[in-house]
Amino acid sequence: MSKPVIPSGGRLRPLGIDEVRLAPGFWGDRQRLNADVILEHCRSWEERLGWIDNFRRPDAPHRGREFSDSEIYKLLEGMIWEAGREPDSGLKARIDELSEIIAGAQEPDGYLNTRWRGNRYADLEWGHELYCFGHLIQAGVASLRSPGPGLLGEVAIRAADHVCREFADGARESVCGHPVIEMALVELFRVTGEERYLEQARLFVERRGRPVLDDIHLGRAYFQDDMPVRQARVFRGHAVRALYLASGAVDVAVETGDEDLLAAIIDQWDRTVAARTYLTGGMGSRHSGEMFGEDWELPPDRAYSETCAGVASVMLCWRLLLATGDPRYADLAERTLYNVVATSPAADGHAFFYANPLQVRVPGRVPDPDVVNPRVEAPLRAPWFSVSCCPNNLARTFSSLGGYIATRDDHGVQVQQLAPCTIETTLEDGRRVGLRVDTGYPWSGEVTVRVDETDGGPWRLSVRIPPWAGRTESYLVEERDWRPGDEIRLDLPMEPRWTRPDPRIDAVRGCVAVERGPLVYCAESLDDDPPLAGLHVDTSAPPRELRDGDGLGRILLSVPARTVSGDGPWPYGAPRPEARAPGATTLVPYHMWGNRGPATMRVWLPEDTRLREVTRLRENRDDG
Amino acid sequence: MSKPVIPSGGRLRPLGIDEVRLAPGFWGDRQRLNADVILEHCRSWEERLGWIDNFRRPDAPHRGREFSDSEIYKLLEGMIWEAGREPDSGLKARIDELSEIIAGAQEPDGYLNTRWRGNRYADLEWGHELYCFGHLIQAGVASLRSPGPGLLGEVAIRAADHVCREFADGARESVCGHPVIEMALVELFRVTGEERYLEQARLFVERRGRPVLDDIHLGRAYFQDDMPVRQARVFRGHAVRALYLASGAVDVAVETGDEDLLAAIIDQWDRTVAARTYLTGGMGSRHSGEMFGEDWELPPDRAYSETCAGVASVMLCWRLLLATGDPRYADLAERTLYNVVATSPAADGHAFFYANPLQVRVPGRVPDPDVVNPRVEAPLRAPWFSVSCCPNNLARTFSSLGGYIATRDDHGVQVQQLAPCTIETTLEDGRRVGLRVDTGYPWSGEVTVRVDETDGGPWRLSVRIPPWAGRTESYLVEERDWRPGDEIRLDLPMEPRWTRPDPRIDAVRGCVAVERGPLVYCAESLDDDPPLAGLHVDTSAPPRELRDGDGLGRILLSVPARTVSGDGPWPYGAPRPEARAPGATTLVPYHMWGNRGPATMRVWLPEDTRLREVTRLRENRDDG
Repeated sequence: MSKPVIPSGGRLRPLGIDEVRLAPGFWGDRQRLNADVILEHCRSWEERLGWIDNFRRPDAPHRGREFSDSEIYKLLEGMIWEAGREPDSGLKARIDELSEIIAGAQEPDGYLNTRWRGNRYADLEWGHELYCFGHLIQAGVASLRSPGPGLLGEVAIRAADHVCREFADGARESVCGHPVIEMALVELFRVTGEERYLEQARLFVERRGRPVLDDIHLGRAYFQDDMPVRQARVFRGHAVRALYLASGAVDVAVETGDEDLLAAIIDQWDRTVAARTYLTGGMGSRHSGEMFGEDWELPPDRAYSETCAGVASVMLCWRLLLATGDPRYADLAERTLYNVVATSPAADGHAFFYANPLQVRVPGRVPDPDVVNPRVEAPLRAPWFSVSCCPNNLARTFSSLGGYIATRDDHGVQVQQLAPCTIETTLEDGRRVGLRVDTGYPWSGEVTVRVDETDGGPWRLSVRIPPWAGRTESYLVEERDWRPGDEIRLDLPMEPRWTRPDPRIDAVRGCVAVERGPLVYCAESLDDDPPLAGLHVDTSAPPRELRDGDGLGRILLSVPARTVSGDGPWPYGAPRPEARAPGATTLVPYHMWGNRGPATMRVWLPEDTRLREVTRLRENRDDG
Repeated sequence: MSKPVIPSGGRLRPLGIDEVRLAPGFWGDRQRLNADVILEHCRSWEERLGWIDNFRRPDAPHRGREFSDSEIYKLLEGMIWEAGREPDSGLKARIDELSEIIAGAQEPDGYLNTRWRGNRYADLEWGHELYCFGHLIQAGVASLRSPGPGLLGEVAIRAADHVCREFADGARESVCGHPVIEMALVELFRVTGEERYLEQARLFVERRGRPVLDDIHLGRAYFQDDMPVRQARVFRGHAVRALYLASGAVDVAVETGDEDLLAAIIDQWDRTVAARTYLTGGMGSRHSGEMFGEDWELPPDRAYSETCAGVASVMLCWRLLLATGDPRYADLAERTLYNVVATSPAADGHAFFYANPLQVRVPGRVPDPDVVNPRVEAPLRAPWFSVSCCPNNLARTFSSLGGYIATRDDHGVQVQQLAPCTIETTLEDGRRVGLRVDTGYPWSGEVTVRVDETDGGPWRLSVRIPPWAGRTESYLVEERDWRPGDEIRLDLPMEPRWTRPDPRIDAVRGCVAVERGPLVYCAESLDDDPPLAGLHVDTSAPPRELRDGDGLGRILLSVPARTVSGDGPWPYGAPRPEARAPGATTLVPYHMWGNRGPATMRVWLPEDTRLREVTRLRENRDDG
């Protein structure tokens, strides 16, 4: 039962946190860091800033932003999944304490909000009340799916009942400016079987875009109220809102059998991935409104690519993967996990990127570890933000990550993400299966899946093959009468590769990026390194691998590069002869950047096209 | 006396609006449109929205934004210059009426603000009170420099005296979040001779950046309070604020003989022009905070390039030109006038661009002519905005434009902007000079300056030569004993030219722009035209000229182009074979775009580099 998402239909069933245990490795290490550092880091900031006190003293002046309650709920959800993973972690007492504090602030009719108490639903556009309820319900669902008494589950059910009364047809026929309650209510339906929660979620999805909210200076597309969900062409507006809404719509579609709605979201996802997504998987091109841009508007420097949008995209991918069985969703989830979700937290777990740009031109100050960052645009990871959704969203993602690794269907088990782990599950027909995945992925491309336990008889084992491997098939599939000790092995090509953008992505024209396995690389320049402005790389040979000196097996890369200098009073005109200083530049995995102090960085590297064209022309001449 | 800026020192003296009369032509036509349409368009919107009523009923609830008073002042300044230009225009009654309404709202101690009355100076960061005073004083200066009774001048002097008392050293030692009062106070000093106004302006300039304002989520650089004015390296933060502050600092420097301060602003201007300015002369790279970006951050699609920043840049250029005599400032003013200031108003004068991006990917709806646009990001010109600084700022710029055309020094007269006009002025030694400038500029490159009147004896006539003419000298200079009927003639090369960006401007790498004379061109695609996404131009031959069919002598251009198509589910990877449909694309002057209905547009055109490299290589082979 310990799963964040349990659809009653769809092509695949999720394996839960209790079935997939991450072993030490890329993700297991981050899950450990989360348990040891990030959860408590978040809790102590929320205590210190009075966001928890808001619940203890609901009649005192509210502290923090209008949505601060939701931060406590996200954190609590993270703690609950972590406690389910590691029952002896000592988190239980924390969870019980927080749950009681929250329960104490709930009003008799189920309403619960420390900011708007006494002034309910006065501002659906910006008030975030239903958004807070959504996160409360998600935490409640985690509690209901975990062993032990479920005070928080009761609180969530009372809250959901209140919402169903208040927002029924004939009552307040509106929606929240910030979606999330849609998927929360569907999950509460899934755990309780109460149809009214599903119906309320359906109402919220269907009402949107009629329009029902007031117009705002950012336009109604900001909160996806510009047109009905099923009529939209593409994801638009505030990226986190758009992705949470789409996740809720998929949940509603799956539970109500609404294939049109599911197809609409799939079409929107396709178009968004084709023209509004960063190489990292990041989404959101604009700082203004934290929004998606237009098609092909993907500036690397002003990329917003909010950490929470990465988390939300993984949530949506997971739902679409379960609904359709299409591995493309697992592919994007992998890309986003390695290059957005893994990028946000500092190596020590005490600071976070809110936005994840693909280029930084000016080295930022290291933020004071003791000060709340007023701006999300910190050029380096900051300990906390006045809007601090991202650290909590990471916390719940890391603690529940085991629930996003593998699936099963009527024929067997699918390993969707290539992480070292053990899997213990039950096939549809009741047979037990135990698997062990061994791999040094993403640094190494060797992945071994060993059957440790099987009850006999044939079943199918599938291991996803990422698209960059260049194979025609998306899964390594083997169906047989497995015996304990049997293995299958995937060997992925880990040569670094040059990646070029679609010619319509204006902002990175003439550039290449370097990828190796699922990792996007970047050039990072610390104090003494050559500056990145003017850097042009030579792509006539593949990047060379360097082993990081840290003993962790991490791979760095080196590419030949030239730096173009030139200083004119006016930067436009006829081409000038360019002085080019030859050299080489070291590339580091994008998720590692910014851990060594102030630096500039760029993922997209201007290509020395002149050299490339000359090479190409010579080749043509040699050919002919 | 009818001049917006009259420094007591510096290299050049300005010729006034009463000395330079624009004849029909590019600018004369716009001045006519302003007189006939724009001034009344602005007034009627301000009346309709209650912004004028705020003065009539200062105790009623305030309507509009907190800075709405300033809009009336800017408009009034525009009306006053226009009335000075055309005394019989019938504007006098309007001016008197508005002046009396404003005077009626002034409090006994000189304070005047319809929003903050009763709650003075509670929010210097965002309240805009001194900003409103600044615009009031600028309108008052215009009034004091015009013939007739000067009620508005008296109001402005009372307001300035109030400000000097309130913000003296020892009183409120702070500044306004939005600069403008600095240059207003210097000009009031220039017109009245009262040193206290200059001293107060100096205090405002010197206090800034100590810091004196509260930190805000955009950072103190937003309002230039991050470091002292003379220590800054470059213009930064909110572009209009930065440019108004720099203008005020130049005024203070010139009047106080502070060469260090002047040198600091010149250095900042140099660096800003070299790395933070668009090809159009536009400034401001970010929607978020309407701000300058970092060096080389110049996205064409998300260019903010606010119309008011263009106006402010022209104001600053004028001051720097007068102070130094360096024609580079006139060059940038020309570029900005033709490609930002002229771009904003619709051909009919009833709608305006607030932001002036260099690329628009999605054709916008034509805004309703009867509705206030809540957003500045209108993809087409809108009739009015909830923040409507730009139309009023254009109005005062057009009506005073004669004051930005020509200068004189001890030796003679300099024609700084090449517009058809008549000039009647007096040399330093009292001799009368009358000139007539005939030209079809910017469409034609022939400029004839004829001496119509001269009192005899030698003097020097200079005509600025724009830098794109490729001459070694910046002025055509002729000193002689002129006779009436004498002429000098400038013949500028008007072939269209390919312009390439500095390789450090990442957002337009691999692109070319087309310029002809002072005009930047752009591709514009209406409904039936080929789409601009995927367009690649062939630069192996120069663009071909087409005459616009409108009989106005305007020049369009045609360039060979290919459209790259390609639709993949994921837009990054190994280069794919590209289908290229050959064709040609028509370019229109950038300032004309968006007048024919919804359209997409781009100034920077991706270059078919492969073709260029092949051509270059062939040439090299032929050479060697």
